[in-house]
Amino acid sequence: MNREFEIPVQGQGLYEITGKVEEAVLAAGKREALATVFIRHTSASLVIQENADPAVLRDLQTFLQRLVPENEPWYTHVEEGADDMPAHIKGALTQTHLSIPVVEGRLALGTWQGIFLWEHRHRRSSRRVVVNVLAGG
Amino acid sequence: MNREFEIPVQGQGLYEITGKVEEAVLAAGKREALATVFIRHTSASLVIQENADPAVLRDLQTFLQRLVPENEPWYTHVEEGADDMPAHIKGALTQTHLSIPVVEGRLALGTWQGIFLWEHRHRRSSRRVVVNVLAGG
Amino acid sequence: MNREFEIPVQGQGLYEITGKVEEAVLAAGKREALATVFIRHTSASLVIQENADPAVLRDLQTFLQRLVPENEPWYTHVEEGADDMPAHIKGALTQTHLSIPVVEGRLALGTWQGIFLWEHRHRRSSRRVVVNVLAGG
Repeated sequence: MNREFEIPVQGQGLYEITGKVEEAVLAAGKREALATVFIRHTSASLVIQENADPAVLRDLQTFLQRLVPENEPWYTHVEEGADDMPAHIKGALTQTHLSIPVVEGRLALGTWQGIFLWEHRHRRSSRRVVVNVLAGG
Repeated sequence: MNREFEIPVQGQGLYEITGKVEEAVLAAGKREALATVFIRHTSASLVIQENADPAVLRDLQTFLQRLVPENEPWYTHVEEGADDMPAHIKGALTQTHLSIPVVEGRLALGTWQGIFLWEHRHRRSSRRVVVNVLAGG
Repeated sequence: MNREFEIPVQGQGLYEITGKVEEAVLAAGKREALATVFIRHTSASLVIQENADPAVLRDLQTFLQRLVPENEPWYTHVEEGADDMPAHIKGALTQTHLSIPVVEGRLALGTWQGIFLWEHRHRRSSRRVVVNVLAGG
């Protein structure tokens, strides 16, 4: 019912993970259920957004960058790099988890919806995500 | 366990859907459960907020409008209208789903809490929302 | 499967409640499950953030204070005090609920993740939080 994935990331941006979540849902084999995606980090987050036009993802990234700039003089958490405190703030403004109903064995996403990991740090790394698929009693 | 609703909207603003969610919970007939509301769109979202004073909803709308203005010169996703990219950003800053415990057959909302669909586009349309009610094994 | 807690707060700030949620998970006695925390208020919210360096919490608080100041001339919901409308906005930008997978009887939090109640009003009070632990059928 719980599966953990490692998602490699190459710096800031949105990485689509819809396929990974679908895989976990298929493996669970439940027709009616609730799928929950949880990210085990506080400087990367999750969001459901349009997966059709890449310009949407680019503008989402630009907006968040402008809203939460690096090097604000009032930041006091600065030891881990200029992108670390902004990453925590961006995480707090977006999601640590997402739940999606499973209907007839499939995620009930709308036509244009994709599930994204939103990386807020510059460095390459890998992020751990848990997918939980729960069917009723 | 999953029910889909069509919610008609007349442009930007917050539309209370608590009654619709309660209806799905009553129909499920479970005393202890978890109700999850999911919106199948990326330019409208969900939020739990005060349903007593309409001024709260008005100020929420004004705040989001000022935080995410139309016609920013750096927007690159512009083909679908001046309100489209702001709508995606507003969606990313609020919720695509909400989960609420069901206690003794009722949503465990606080006294002043209502469930709202937050429409971010100007046009009239209708939005699809799925309510999932899950009881334990 | 549902437990309600009262969390005392002494004004604005982040209060860690990970221990309370763990308690409810242990009491439920399920090895594989989904834990959902829900706050029954609209002027306080929930967030998962780093629980290692207190400077992170301080900077999160400062950011939100600057993003949503008191006494904006355009606020119309002003009867309940200068901190009330900002509190609702801050609530809308963060979370009313959080769901966390339970793996082998424990919350699947990352090493540095803690669950926090984020109080947005100045006054001392106490907040009601429901923890729902759901195991599959």
